[in-house]
Amino acid sequence: MKNNQPSKLKGSVGIVTPQIAHFTDPLPLSCGRPLAAYDIAYETYGQLNADKSNAILICHALSGHHHAAGYHSEDEKRPGWWDQYIGPGKVIDTNHFFVLSINNLGGCHGSTGPSSIDPTTGKPYGPDFPSLRCRDWVDSQRRMMQLFGISQWAAVIGGSLGGMQAMRWALEYPDELRHCVVIASAMVLNAQNIAFNEVARTAITSDPHFYGGRYAEHDTLPRHGLAVARMVGHITYLSEDGMGEKFGRELKAGDFSLGQDGGVEFQVESYLHHQGSAFAEVFDANTYLLMTKALDYFDLAREYDNDPARAFSHAKCQFFVVSFTSDWRFAPKRSREIVDALVAANKPVSYVEVEANHGHDAFLLPIPRYQKAFAAYMHRVKAECEPGGAVQQETAEVNHAG
Amino acid sequence: MKNNQPSKLKGSVGIVTPQIAHFTDPLPLSCGRPLAAYDIAYETYGQLNADKSNAILICHALSGHHHAAGYHSEDEKRPGWWDQYIGPGKVIDTNHFFVLSINNLGGCHGSTGPSSIDPTTGKPYGPDFPSLRCRDWVDSQRRMMQLFGISQWAAVIGGSLGGMQAMRWALEYPDELRHCVVIASAMVLNAQNIAFNEVARTAITSDPHFYGGRYAEHDTLPRHGLAVARMVGHITYLSEDGMGEKFGRELKAGDFSLGQDGGVEFQVESYLHHQGSAFAEVFDANTYLLMTKALDYFDLAREYDNDPARAFSHAKCQFFVVSFTSDWRFAPKRSREIVDALVAANKPVSYVEVEANHGHDAFLLPIPRYQKAFAAYMHRVKAECEPGGAVQQETAEVNHAG
Repeated sequence: MKNNQPSKLKGSVGIVTPQIAHFTDPLPLSCGRPLAAYDIAYETYGQLNADKSNAILICHALSGHHHAAGYHSEDEKRPGWWDQYIGPGKVIDTNHFFVLSINNLGGCHGSTGPSSIDPTTGKPYGPDFPSLRCRDWVDSQRRMMQLFGISQWAAVIGGSLGGMQAMRWALEYPDELRHCVVIASAMVLNAQNIAFNEVARTAITSDPHFYGGRYAEHDTLPRHGLAVARMVGHITYLSEDGMGEKFGRELKAGDFSLGQDGGVEFQVESYLHHQGSAFAEVFDANTYLLMTKALDYFDLAREYDNDPARAFSHAKCQFFVVSFTSDWRFAPKRSREIVDALVAANKPVSYVEVEANHGHDAFLLPIPRYQKAFAAYMHRVKAECEPGGAVQQETAEVNHAG
Repeated sequence: MKNNQPSKLKGSVGIVTPQIAHFTDPLPLSCGRPLAAYDIAYETYGQLNADKSNAILICHALSGHHHAAGYHSEDEKRPGWWDQYIGPGKVIDTNHFFVLSINNLGGCHGSTGPSSIDPTTGKPYGPDFPSLRCRDWVDSQRRMMQLFGISQWAAVIGGSLGGMQAMRWALEYPDELRHCVVIASAMVLNAQNIAFNEVARTAITSDPHFYGGRYAEHDTLPRHGLAVARMVGHITYLSEDGMGEKFGRELKAGDFSLGQDGGVEFQVESYLHHQGSAFAEVFDANTYLLMTKALDYFDLAREYDNDPARAFSHAKCQFFVVSFTSDWRFAPKRSREIVDALVAANKPVSYVEVEANHGHDAFLLPIPRYQKAFAAYMHRVKAECEPGGAVQQETAEVNHAG
């Protein structure tokens, strides 16, 4: 970090440099095909304390990555995707916490994924990359944990698909986290969620430039398919009212009185096209397929007789659950199902349902009530990590702040 | 109609034969490019009475057509799309009403549209077919009315995009209808509605088999794009809960424990693919583009200073408005906006909000409360057409049955 920070770096963690961890121990995967060796791209913010009790793991969502806070350079236009929440004095306070943010295995931002070279063939894995489940990510994240010599996370935190990883952590390695923060998430995708994912996948796989996933070998990209996938996804991240307020029926171009010949283009159309085509240039199509499949297959309680309370009975951490009123991808009722299951399992949980018209994307945005509730919770997490703070796992508090 | 009807014809209007009306008077269109000559495919059910006071116009929705009731042959698997509502003794009772159902201009089921041959070139119109607005359909429907010598509809009835046509009728030709039935519709599309339409259109136009709309000249179809368009549309026709009840997370094939390699396919994925690919074989892509644009551009009050009450002040008919609780394409609040505007304009309106978990598609389905309320309303329409019945346009009743 430089001393003379330009103003945009102020208040952020400053300039950060992504790192790569290389693993050579084969990673067993739930599909049965282990990954022999792999890289994980990551960033860290803040300092690990002496007893390594202040570590926080950030789990990212579908199209996220390890760059969650700060800037890669002074020229970078926008900071990491959760810079509003991670930084000195922020909700996830890097003056107190050591924050680890990784790019999930299978991703396309530096971690080994379908666009990486398969050492056995010398070509990109493409469609041959093994399918991944949420638990595989948890296992690969655990290796990162071991790399840093951390034996227990102060908290595992994630929104959307990230929240699913956080919950899976609580079930798979109950002794290794004290807090689980689950934001705008769900215990399982419903038929409508799966349907939207399948539309997106179909758009990608039916693009003739997809070449069965081997587009890299053909030196091309399934741009149109990926753009349509992103467009449909994007609609599900926003609320109906939020879109109405943002775009209404404003025109970008054209004249109604001439109908289609008038070249009418609504603002919302222009916006979606921009989102779609920008995404298609930077995101790997095979990763998109892999990530959406991991979402579809996630089912917290499947191996617990489909009984979420039974699943959560294995957890030993405390939970903080957040939902947003206008989120229709993972609506508040989906979070309340999580809370109900935790209560039924007699686990400590705080829940806040935040009034917001930003839809699913609200979890990324600085919404005062959300910030306040989240900060209050993290203050508690922080207090436990400080000298004299009680690092304990089995408080009995159940606090529904809905 | 045959005498020895097989049982499936029982209770329906029986065997019906589509007709074609050929018009040679140029039809002025709102885009400024008239259509020199055109065909309208239509069906009729029931008998026109002596004073021609019992005629009902059915306006179809996005992917609808003229075949609304009965069977084209004994071999036809399914009857017309609204057979549950049109027939002898049914809600739209063909023992009393003469029902005209047409395929909209620009359609692909027999009326002149983009897939028809342009007489000036000898090739299909394709993308050169003039763009259409809701008012153009109303004008072409009015020519059908004149063909039958009808001076006033007993009712103009439509669901979704059909409801928009019905409303436009009430504003454009207020003396020519006594009742306007608007089901699961809206006065204007919102940003989310437009966004979904644009995703569908983008899927179609970015299919390399689209050829800028000239796929017919290349002897091909943009099947993949049209399938994706239908898949995304279909999701918006169903409710989240309805999809959950219908499909849940049931598998069509595969094994979860093997992840993607296990060939897992959810029922909902299989269903959507079937819907998409079946649609792609029978529906014209250019028609889909044209119809969705007509939807996007529809704005009941645009030319009335964006004041719906001012718009409806021109109407002289009575209104029946229906919405369905789980419809999120055109949610009940969109219908309540119609009702509010009608009330503000001091127009007679009955409104019923039907509890149903079928989403937007509910308007096609036999839901008891919907059938009962609709039948009660149509009974009133019927009474006015009978000898001694008062055919009047200016009753003052305002009845909110919400």
